[in-house]
Amino acid sequence: MANLPDKDQLLKIAEHLKPFIHRTPVFTSSSLNKLAGCRLYFKCESFQKTGSFKLRGAMNAILNLRNDAVEKGVVTHSSGNFAAALAYAASRIGAKAAIVMPENVIPSKRDAVLSYGANIIYSGNNPLDREKKCEQVISETGSSFIHPSNDINVILGHSSCAIELISDSETLDAVIAPVGGGGLISGIALGFKHFSPRTQIIGGEPLNADDAYQSLKAGKIIPQIDPKTIADGLRTSLGDVTFPIIKDHLSEIIRVSEDDIINAMKLIWERLKIVAEPSGAVAFAALLNNSSVFNNKKIGIIISGGNIDTSALSF
Amino acid sequence: MANLPDKDQLLKIAEHLKPFIHRTPVFTSSSLNKLAGCRLYFKCESFQKTGSFKLRGAMNAILNLRNDAVEKGVVTHSSGNFAAALAYAASRIGAKAAIVMPENVIPSKRDAVLSYGANIIYSGNNPLDREKKCEQVISETGSSFIHPSNDINVILGHSSCAIELISDSETLDAVIAPVGGGGLISGIALGFKHFSPRTQIIGGEPLNADDAYQSLKAGKIIPQIDPKTIADGLRTSLGDVTFPIIKDHLSEIIRVSEDDIINAMKLIWERLKIVAEPSGAVAFAALLNNSSVFNNKKIGIIISGGNIDTSALSF
Repeated sequence: MANLPDKDQLLKIAEHLKPFIHRTPVFTSSSLNKLAGCRLYFKCESFQKTGSFKLRGAMNAILNLRNDAVEKGVVTHSSGNFAAALAYAASRIGAKAAIVMPENVIPSKRDAVLSYGANIIYSGNNPLDREKKCEQVISETGSSFIHPSNDINVILGHSSCAIELISDSETLDAVIAPVGGGGLISGIALGFKHFSPRTQIIGGEPLNADDAYQSLKAGKIIPQIDPKTIADGLRTSLGDVTFPIIKDHLSEIIRVSEDDIINAMKLIWERLKIVAEPSGAVAFAALLNNSSVFNNKKIGIIISGGNIDTSALSF
Repeated sequence: MANLPDKDQLLKIAEHLKPFIHRTPVFTSSSLNKLAGCRLYFKCESFQKTGSFKLRGAMNAILNLRNDAVEKGVVTHSSGNFAAALAYAASRIGAKAAIVMPENVIPSKRDAVLSYGANIIYSGNNPLDREKKCEQVISETGSSFIHPSNDINVILGHSSCAIELISDSETLDAVIAPVGGGGLISGIALGFKHFSPRTQIIGGEPLNADDAYQSLKAGKIIPQIDPKTIADGLRTSLGDVTFPIIKDHLSEIIRVSEDDIINAMKLIWERLKIVAEPSGAVAFAALLNNSSVFNNKKIGIIISGGNIDTSALSF
């Protein structure tokens, strides 16, 4: 952990990102405060460009490429929000991006990537296939691999989300963010560590994809294989960059059921009138599951994204 | 029409309303601009207090009560957004509100009204029953009846929405608002008439509830009886206050199918990441149905509300 940047470096990263990202709004709701018994600050990354927080990390990774690397382009594997984010981030500096996606990708996610001018390379539908495909692209083109979460530049980009939230809310007793690969919460943890050290960092994780909870308990990374949860952004596992940060900085991980996630998502839609995707509702679900602990406290909730497949809606 | 207020009076009304309402945001989206071939300004009344534009009119009507009328309270019939709006507006000045609602009202709408401290009086499920119930309340309590749309103070309250939109966008070639009872579009028309007279005023109406279209064609009010449309806020008919304003100020009414409404609603959810209710998507549906006419123009779209029944969602 000796190499983690200091306060000034985090501020510099956030400043550097500004022209490329939205400063997303912080929403409050008296009806949800009443329901939860505490004062909530929702950081709405659903309104981030490309529809999720992922752009912060993707953009920072892209801005950190050396000139010769920019020419050769970037590659990642993702069927979700990081795919669109990296495609968009690369387009902003005119770099080529290759995105390895499974053949059964949701058409709207595929179209988003294509609309940013990235190249899609279809792999099979399992993780081994896509990793092999990535290696093949790298060996053929010399492009740089950017991992969706387990990459220090990606994590540092996400810390800009914490810096904005700290500046746009009261001093928080706790902040809750969803945990998938752990990139978001690692960035949030580093931001709060420097700029609001008394705020507890809490993870929200689907019970059906609780590798971070299990890993923390075991003291080592326990990856999950093909977990089933509606929170499709949280099916990935921690890595060797995110695990140590999470181990050092999180107070706890709160696990939530599928019903908890759906209930929290519907409340966000109904009361805040904004669209959160299932993964984006997991932090709020974690709060609701333990609201007595947070009674009368000031809590930040990261709504991580708002990309939904409307064809799945019953209209 | 001789009694309609002038510019200064409209500004005064808008100013008077300010402490009681939100100045709702105007959203833009480069992806929707590209899709529609024009430059769109979405006025998001979904973020208005109580979840719809209705508060503007309800609040203005309440603020215009004489002192003795305030003591006796107000009554209306509504199973939807005006019910919550009037209940909330009355609570802001400590007046009693009685809301006549059908017995089969959606529980979430009932709960919203109750949460603002209003008294619900259940009528049967048809319009005649509820009107009789309203008359009964009025004769027993002396309370003032406030119609959800066909009331000049309600209409004038809605003009504040136009004033905000005009100030927060470029000069618009046209503004499109949904038409139910006609209260919203009448207020919008009066606001634009005074502050942006070159902007065309266009109504969006469900094909399945096209009484305004039929009334304009016939030159007289042709009420509709129990129309079937997913846009539940637009099932009511024009009245003797709204019809003349609409006749004088609207360029046209564009009718949209149920599929058009659903498609537009899903696009708003997916691209703007905000929750519009079906009625709230009708103006955008009208634009998409005729987008070639609006090519390269600057168009205001009123997203009238965001109150949805999440129990109807397939999660």
